[in-house]
Amino acid sequence: MRLAIYPGSFDPITNGHLDLLTRALKLFDRVLISVVRNPSKSPLFTEQERIDLIRSVVGRNPRVTVDAFDGLLVDYAQAKKATAIVRGLRAISDFEYELQMALMNRKLNTSVETVFLMPNEKYTYLNSSIVREIARLGGDVRSFVPAVVYRALKRKVGQ
Amino acid sequence: MRLAIYPGSFDPITNGHLDLLTRALKLFDRVLISVVRNPSKSPLFTEQERIDLIRSVVGRNPRVTVDAFDGLLVDYAQAKKATAIVRGLRAISDFEYELQMALMNRKLNTSVETVFLMPNEKYTYLNSSIVREIARLGGDVRSFVPAVVYRALKRKVGQ
Amino acid sequence: MRLAIYPGSFDPITNGHLDLLTRALKLFDRVLISVVRNPSKSPLFTEQERIDLIRSVVGRNPRVTVDAFDGLLVDYAQAKKATAIVRGLRAISDFEYELQMALMNRKLNTSVETVFLMPNEKYTYLNSSIVREIARLGGDVRSFVPAVVYRALKRKVGQ
Amino acid sequence: MRLAIYPGSFDPITNGHLDLLTRALKLFDRVLISVVRNPSKSPLFTEQERIDLIRSVVGRNPRVTVDAFDGLLVDYAQAKKATAIVRGLRAISDFEYELQMALMNRKLNTSVETVFLMPNEKYTYLNSSIVREIARLGGDVRSFVPAVVYRALKRKVGQ
Amino acid sequence: MRLAIYPGSFDPITNGHLDLLTRALKLFDRVLISVVRNPSKSPLFTEQERIDLIRSVVGRNPRVTVDAFDGLLVDYAQAKKATAIVRGLRAISDFEYELQMALMNRKLNTSVETVFLMPNEKYTYLNSSIVREIARLGGDVRSFVPAVVYRALKRKVGQ
Amino acid sequence: MRLAIYPGSFDPITNGHLDLLTRALKLFDRVLISVVRNPSKSPLFTEQERIDLIRSVVGRNPRVTVDAFDGLLVDYAQAKKATAIVRGLRAISDFEYELQMALMNRKLNTSVETVFLMPNEKYTYLNSSIVREIARLGGDVRSFVPAVVYRALKRKVGQ
Repeated sequence: MRLAIYPGSFDPITNGHLDLLTRALKLFDRVLISVVRNPSKSPLFTEQERIDLIRSVVGRNPRVTVDAFDGLLVDYAQAKKATAIVRGLRAISDFEYELQMALMNRKLNTSVETVFLMPNEKYTYLNSSIVREIARLGGDVRSFVPAVVYRALKRKVGQ
Repeated sequence: MRLAIYPGSFDPITNGHLDLLTRALKLFDRVLISVVRNPSKSPLFTEQERIDLIRSVVGRNPRVTVDAFDGLLVDYAQAKKATAIVRGLRAISDFEYELQMALMNRKLNTSVETVFLMPNEKYTYLNSSIVREIARLGGDVRSFVPAVVYRALKRKVGQ
Repeated sequence: MRLAIYPGSFDPITNGHLDLLTRALKLFDRVLISVVRNPSKSPLFTEQERIDLIRSVVGRNPRVTVDAFDGLLVDYAQAKKATAIVRGLRAISDFEYELQMALMNRKLNTSVETVFLMPNEKYTYLNSSIVREIARLGGDVRSFVPAVVYRALKRKVGQ
Repeated sequence: MRLAIYPGSFDPITNGHLDLLTRALKLFDRVLISVVRNPSKSPLFTEQERIDLIRSVVGRNPRVTVDAFDGLLVDYAQAKKATAIVRGLRAISDFEYELQMALMNRKLNTSVETVFLMPNEKYTYLNSSIVREIARLGGDVRSFVPAVVYRALKRKVGQ
Repeated sequence: MRLAIYPGSFDPITNGHLDLLTRALKLFDRVLISVVRNPSKSPLFTEQERIDLIRSVVGRNPRVTVDAFDGLLVDYAQAKKATAIVRGLRAISDFEYELQMALMNRKLNTSVETVFLMPNEKYTYLNSSIVREIARLGGDVRSFVPAVVYRALKRKVGQ
Repeated sequence: MRLAIYPGSFDPITNGHLDLLTRALKLFDRVLISVVRNPSKSPLFTEQERIDLIRSVVGRNPRVTVDAFDGLLVDYAQAKKATAIVRGLRAISDFEYELQMALMNRKLNTSVETVFLMPNEKYTYLNSSIVREIARLGGDVRSFVPAVVYRALKRKVGQ
């Protein structure tokens, strides 16, 4: 049984995240989506809201679980007996940051491997931050997020 | 008649912006410089000051108009019947961000094309943020901005 | 009347080239597709074959003409009274090479502007060289090139 | 049972390749190292020599097999019932090329996923081409390749 | 006598900084480590603490001095009669920012040259910000910073 | 006495090379320009012609010497008792290649440091290969190379 951890802010989960999850499920027996608790950031959705949105989108799949964590990712991964950390690679800026984090994580704990997957090219431009920004400006984000996330975003930005 | 929108913060307008404007005027019949209203940023110059500085520098040209906008750039561009959005490309970091924005804008509205132009290589290093920083540290920014902007910067940073 | 030159090897023309051409035709009154004569390269298709393939694909549009040239691109552009040179930007490696060529061209002749456009993201991975390689290996390139180019490729690689 | 294909020229196999193989074996049940037959390249080692060198280095591991292929990688992967193609990511230039190939492969066959792994940072600078060059110039490549490859290189470059 | 200035935040000094200092001392007769005073940032360590940590690590070397400065780096460098400014290059993101700063500094003062050195590849992933983050999350940073910095970090993050 | 080696093909020497040499002479007591002998490349100018062109341009300076070498750069540098290898950094593509070579050289010999300098931004676009190409196409390269190189190029390309 091989478990992969897919960590992130998921503020909120997008169709790009779901595309990556589908790819990870081809490679691993189980995937644990882990919302990072970061007290120094002010997310649009609370930790519980983000977990609930993920669960309502992916929760029916018995091979996917959803969780939150703080502390070092590698300690968490080891505690969960994860084989790998899964990350998406879209652009050069992603690449450098992800490489730095992966190298640092390997330095802190050599047992967990970081695996990079590529989302569908139609999600190259997509991330949670740009989705929040477009929603805030009144744009239509229906093609970027699942329906339940779309409704939650509309309520949040008060339209 | 082809209209291009040149959007930006212009906090303040620099010689690099003017270089790009000159190039855009070779390609389009009219250029609309549009100051982005962004409530989450704290600019050095107010929206009205930024518009006034741009007008005092470029306003005499009948083919150039100056404006401000909020909301989605593509909605604004469509309302203005713009053919294109003009952006400058200087460095890789520009490139990735600009590509992401252009792809997202295309997704939201397919009718407006984003056009990338290259400023003169002597403006490669130049942007509004570095001009503000040098002015704040007491450096001489006369060769980076028009004279009227230089005087306005001096008043702002209280020298 | 504004004319843009779209230069390239077009060995052979792909759907990505056609996507860019459509975008250029929104911005310019006429587009001149110019096949670069490069004696130091050994193309798969002869110059005349490449021109014929382009013509059979785009030749019906009265705003598009097809030509070949050697010598300096900027001299050719000036002789044709072109306003701009059009180039596609897909990846960082494109970006650096294109910037270098555009800066050099500007140094040699300041009157012609280089304009960068972005193809549809579904053509990010696409170029003539990869199409030739896939055809050579027996892969199906029907979704990457127009039908007439597909048939010409099949004949060339002898399948 | 999950099989990954690790394709490459392996001209010759280096310690960087072995590092990546070890990481792939954590994630997959079996790894098939596949030497790419490319008639347009002139490798230093023949196809058989490259396979023999790989086998003499990794062949004792029952979870690793070694093979050669021509034609499209995705067709080969499907014929082998592979779950994934494994590739190493070291630098930006890798990244762009690998992304292009992975996107193209996905277009040609959606069932095989490309997985990117990062070698140890001490192999960042290492590839077969630089090893051949240093050996040719009389440099000591003992810390870059297994002993059997070192001896084969010495014989090839005639020292 | 050639003096180089090595400017930075040093919040706190890491083994990567020390690696670069050692390299700079091969090239220059003296190196002046200069802590940048930046009122708009909130460092973890005060200016005096950062200077004290640097001194306790490198202060015994008569060819190294430690200082702090505000204002323009190039004015400071000229006042100190420095031949060069020394900066480390690790990643592409470094590269673009460093190039921009170096070009701007050259524009402001042509007499001081910026010199780029590469740290050991094992420090590629290392910077002060990631060290602070790992320490805050309870990770072990002993292999990234000198012992005196390790103890100071532990006291700061209250473990 | 600190000696730096400035290695390259210099096929032919350009104004960009001279700009870098001037910067290196601020940092080092002597600079040795070393033409790389590479039997697998077919240069436009012979080794002797390239050395003669460099000498006629820089040879009057007693702090500059000109030479050619083959074998490993680091062995050559050590034999010459060089403190550093000097390289120019202009673009991202430079950066990755230069980093790889510098890391490899350091692996082969830890005593010689590679130092990166930035040419004037007006030489960002300039290299020997583009100068040869423009000369071949009949373009005017007078602003890119010294007069003696300009005349030699004209003779070579037979104009």
